[in-house]
Amino acid sequence: MRSPLSLPVRLQGHTISVLDETKLPLEETYIEVKTLDDALQALGQMKTRAFGQVLLFFYTCVLAGEIDEVAASFKKTRPTFDFFTLADALKGTAKGTATLKEAAISIIEGLDKKRTVRAQRLAEILPQEARILTICNVNGELIYLYEALQGQGKTAIFFVSETRPYLQGTRLTLWELRRARIPARVLCDNQAAVVMQKGLINCVVTGSDRSTDKGDIINKIGTYAMARLAHYFTIPFYVLTQFPQALDIEKIAIEERPVHEVFMWLEGKGPWPEALYPSFDITLAEYISGWIDISGEVRCA
Amino acid sequence: MRSPLSLPVRLQGHTISVLDETKLPLEETYIEVKTLDDALQALGQMKTRAFGQVLLFFYTCVLAGEIDEVAASFKKTRPTFDFFTLADALKGTAKGTATLKEAAISIIEGLDKKRTVRAQRLAEILPQEARILTICNVNGELIYLYEALQGQGKTAIFFVSETRPYLQGTRLTLWELRRARIPARVLCDNQAAVVMQKGLINCVVTGSDRSTDKGDIINKIGTYAMARLAHYFTIPFYVLTQFPQALDIEKIAIEERPVHEVFMWLEGKGPWPEALYPSFDITLAEYISGWIDISGEVRCA
Repeated sequence: MRSPLSLPVRLQGHTISVLDETKLPLEETYIEVKTLDDALQALGQMKTRAFGQVLLFFYTCVLAGEIDEVAASFKKTRPTFDFFTLADALKGTAKGTATLKEAAISIIEGLDKKRTVRAQRLAEILPQEARILTICNVNGELIYLYEALQGQGKTAIFFVSETRPYLQGTRLTLWELRRARIPARVLCDNQAAVVMQKGLINCVVTGSDRSTDKGDIINKIGTYAMARLAHYFTIPFYVLTQFPQALDIEKIAIEERPVHEVFMWLEGKGPWPEALYPSFDITLAEYISGWIDISGEVRCA
Repeated sequence: MRSPLSLPVRLQGHTISVLDETKLPLEETYIEVKTLDDALQALGQMKTRAFGQVLLFFYTCVLAGEIDEVAASFKKTRPTFDFFTLADALKGTAKGTATLKEAAISIIEGLDKKRTVRAQRLAEILPQEARILTICNVNGELIYLYEALQGQGKTAIFFVSETRPYLQGTRLTLWELRRARIPARVLCDNQAAVVMQKGLINCVVTGSDRSTDKGDIINKIGTYAMARLAHYFTIPFYVLTQFPQALDIEKIAIEERPVHEVFMWLEGKGPWPEALYPSFDITLAEYISGWIDISGEVRCA
């Protein structure tokens, strides 16, 4: 089964259709992106993120008919993510295709297949009765993972950390798992330690927005606390990676998001005071048990 | 300066006036409690909690003209809190007063004074430039603490963990600190590790709903993760306690709250699926650096 979040951004003619993740789980609506400005607005407002922003980047290059300016603009809007490597990949592939569009589609179809393989690899190293704690959202890949686990005769239940402030855990992951009738429960981020202490989970699985050849990662804020707690409780902590790079993770800029997002539950009834809101955090390799790369490579600590 | 949360429940004639904490920070409204049933409803809906529920308990005994039934009903509604010890204290004090009301007022005034002394003791052991991480709400005591720190020539800024799912950190603590013009910033619970890693804070201060003679505590869910992370980063973790008891902390029932509270940000647009929601967690003494008791006693690990 495929989640609407597996390929949440599509190209239809000269329009990019973007699943508006900020409206989930109450409404499944799509917004239209016709220009670079539209794309940047959708990106900045987090209408799409993670794998969705990869797709949005490629399709925006197709619409714009160029790559460098799009990459620079995307990077400025969401500085932690590595759009330049995506740009290089698109340029490389485009050398062998007639159009940018063909190149983009070829890469995207390839990535989608690779993600099902990656889920398969991860399933192989998870416990027989997997009780999986996760955070944020990995765009339908937990559904691939569940199917892979079933195919291997394993069982699974997901414990979904809600992922404040944007609640991607509840809005997106819980939504797509329930839609696929996969057992899942939500918990507040501050319950992770208790869930581990009580033995309710036996592994942690997260995505990563960036990763290095040393195994250090950047992922959604809260991942670091989860990793350190898992390390404490000797619970394996697995990370889905892509394009690990030879660089110092500390040198990657961590995006600070607008403070009002922390107070979204007050529906704009501010004014609201100062809040801290780094969008991501860094987890060093020493707290990670295994890396499953988009290339299909699995490495365990 | 006194926070409205310092004494959020008051007796006026035959009516108890209860500050409705669920309406904060947008509205400062008070509800009227005239019967035991009213009191239990306010308690169950978390209109008041922590020190407010202590006050509500005493005044409800005054209204009801008896203690045991009130204690049993309160305990049933919020099982983690120790209303029986409060009942014993009220009975003891009432032996020396003409009425239950006099006994209740005598205890409450005593507690309020003791809380200012407790804040003074805590201030003495905090750093010269205190950058304090806190969770949930300790009913105005951080304001006493701030004034005590100032009196001792120390400076302070508070980092307030929002405390999902009920957001007592944002709703109550941030509100009362800002109202008193005390420097404070809010953060999502999942940022605690990053705030520690970056050295933004140099101590943690929390309350406790229960504590034992061994130094184990029960407090708002999220406290345990904060304590373990602070232990990791060797950041001192101080707890305000009251009535430590000679018992096994594991034997105290942990209240499970209604799941819909986790989804309050969806404003009832459910139906909503299963969630985990233990209202409290246990932190063992080994992760705590110091205990400051309501008796004025300070004990450091």
